[in-house]
Amino acid sequence: MPFDWQKKYCERVGHMYGSMTRKLMHLIADPDVISFGGGLPASDLFPLERVKQVVDDTLESDGAAILQYGTSEGYGPLRRAVAERYVQRGFDITDENVLVTSGAQQGIDLVSKILIDKGDAVLVEDPTFLTALQAFSLFQARYLTVPVDGEGMRVDLLPEILRDNDVKFIYVMPNFQNPSGVTISLERRKELLKTAQQYGVPILEDDPYGELRYSGEALPTLKELDDGEQVMYLSSFSKVLSPGMRVCALIAPDEVMGKLVFAKQAADLHTDNLAQRIVYGFLERDFLDPHIQVIINSYRRRRDAMLEAMDRHFPAEVSWTKPDGGIFLWVTLPEGMDAMDLFERAVRAKVAYVPGSCYYANGGGDNKMRLNFSASDEERIELGIQRLAKVIETNMG
Amino acid sequence: MPFDWQKKYCERVGHMYGSMTRKLMHLIADPDVISFGGGLPASDLFPLERVKQVVDDTLESDGAAILQYGTSEGYGPLRRAVAERYVQRGFDITDENVLVTSGAQQGIDLVSKILIDKGDAVLVEDPTFLTALQAFSLFQARYLTVPVDGEGMRVDLLPEILRDNDVKFIYVMPNFQNPSGVTISLERRKELLKTAQQYGVPILEDDPYGELRYSGEALPTLKELDDGEQVMYLSSFSKVLSPGMRVCALIAPDEVMGKLVFAKQAADLHTDNLAQRIVYGFLERDFLDPHIQVIINSYRRRRDAMLEAMDRHFPAEVSWTKPDGGIFLWVTLPEGMDAMDLFERAVRAKVAYVPGSCYYANGGGDNKMRLNFSASDEERIELGIQRLAKVIETNMG
Repeated sequence: MPFDWQKKYCERVGHMYGSMTRKLMHLIADPDVISFGGGLPASDLFPLERVKQVVDDTLESDGAAILQYGTSEGYGPLRRAVAERYVQRGFDITDENVLVTSGAQQGIDLVSKILIDKGDAVLVEDPTFLTALQAFSLFQARYLTVPVDGEGMRVDLLPEILRDNDVKFIYVMPNFQNPSGVTISLERRKELLKTAQQYGVPILEDDPYGELRYSGEALPTLKELDDGEQVMYLSSFSKVLSPGMRVCALIAPDEVMGKLVFAKQAADLHTDNLAQRIVYGFLERDFLDPHIQVIINSYRRRRDAMLEAMDRHFPAEVSWTKPDGGIFLWVTLPEGMDAMDLFERAVRAKVAYVPGSCYYANGGGDNKMRLNFSASDEERIELGIQRLAKVIETNMG
Repeated sequence: MPFDWQKKYCERVGHMYGSMTRKLMHLIADPDVISFGGGLPASDLFPLERVKQVVDDTLESDGAAILQYGTSEGYGPLRRAVAERYVQRGFDITDENVLVTSGAQQGIDLVSKILIDKGDAVLVEDPTFLTALQAFSLFQARYLTVPVDGEGMRVDLLPEILRDNDVKFIYVMPNFQNPSGVTISLERRKELLKTAQQYGVPILEDDPYGELRYSGEALPTLKELDDGEQVMYLSSFSKVLSPGMRVCALIAPDEVMGKLVFAKQAADLHTDNLAQRIVYGFLERDFLDPHIQVIINSYRRRRDAMLEAMDRHFPAEVSWTKPDGGIFLWVTLPEGMDAMDLFERAVRAKVAYVPGSCYYANGGGDNKMRLNFSASDEERIELGIQRLAKVIETNMG
């Protein structure tokens, strides 16, 4: 008789959120489908030769230590290199403020673990990063949402929400947000921080794309603007180097580090040593910044190709964001059109995207869709946008 | 004004358990201290040349895929290779039952995440693996304990406990348990499984050392004996290959896999690709089993050296286990002697261990200590045991 697991699951299992996208993504395994659905970096740009070089050297010089247990805080030289990089950018930190995590996703999980009790409120942008919601939901968070417009989070709405609710923390992606591609203006960043300080609410700033800017001026991060030890900052190496390595730096105030390190130890003891050595090698040898420039040049062309193709092919009733960086843009279909309904037709027409409603913590966004421009070359972008335009037009009748 | 994090922490932070050992271990950074305290594999035995060979070949043949995102379930060929290995050993599974986790620690974390609600009971051995307790405690588990004797868990005590309590799962390490080195007899394994089935309680079987047997006959795992889809099995590659890579296979029944995969995705998306390829390379090229034989031959000598040194040097009032495998043995000091009190004196005498009380979920074990024999060569084992004997004798007055 098979065992009845159902009666053993805990409440958390009832909060498994957004498996929808896993199902959708399985639909598009067909290589003929041009997928704007994922969030993948361009595979053809990976600096494979330099990775090999670093791996060879580091296994030669440091092999036994790489194969042995490491420390939960992360590889010391990597923590120092990350700290130096961010001190140069204006962060007031030392290596003791750097925790190496297995991707930003783990950083989000660990922060949740030390801050969220069942039923606690987390404030997120509307829309926001889906996989962050999946992590928060497993800790049984509830969501308060603030809409995003062309200048990012509507921070003018914050004071009322923070006054009326006990918010555990604010999760925000200020640069080229996933999914919308929108960037929070400098004025709003200052306002966000001021309001958070006034109401005593910590901020988790997720910045995977901050260094991938193709136009406009770089803006200071919330962490740089913070003088109150209130911001935790996630600096993933997934988009600027390689997501397959799962390495991120979680930069956090002194007081909170001990708790995060304990949670990290209980979660997986430490992050893979060789992956940490590779990232360190890229920083130490100054391989990273030249590589970021290569990515920027390519992604800028892809972004422009997608924007131009949309200008040419999309009906006048459709609008979209024009991001200054990152890897996504955000499409608004005519009111009443449902991007989830459209999805199967799109896949039949050999093009895919993620329906926008996946990114709304408390529902909404039915007529939105997220498009990725980093993983397809210009030719496939043109063809895919043509296909998608036809699907939308047909649906408009 | 520095931000007051204290008021933002969730209840879980109050359950951070056993930071004691972190503090103790920091005391013994001195290289002159002979440490029997850690649980480290022997650094000089790592198969570094073969790792290099696999890494070179795999980056050459599969580089871009390694640097790109992988799937949450794990690298397909690794899942298949693990399934084949265990099918040969008698497991009734396919690759769909294998989830690659970032070390056994993550497997423990993920199982906790889908099963433990605040206040739920987890049944553990007394003593048990400390870092598992750290993971369970962060999910606010409470503990029911069953003592271990020379044949392992006292399964005769189980029926009463399971009848009187709603137990979420049983966590058990049947082979060469950490910390005691004790192995559960075949008869008790069958009894444990029968009782767990009778009361409908799942089992999490942790088996990091099962393949490191130096004497006696191999016993079937609980997973092999289970015909009720009730056992989840953790097969870590940390002790048989390398802990620095953080790769483990969590083998679980069909029904529970979907939940575990979701939890894995929310925890860190997936395990480092290159580390997974290295483990796969070792399985595919048949590098793993010959390497395990090398480890066995060396650790057997180290175990014997420690047992013989203890025979020669320890006072008659001290007793200890004689493990058939693994990397630990377990010392019982005279009643009334406190291994925690002794610790600082031991470190001054340049020898270290872990006080046994760290491994008792609900307290106890004050006169116990855990000794590791894998990380020191025979000469240092002899010297360390001499030092420790002197500390114990001095303390006996």
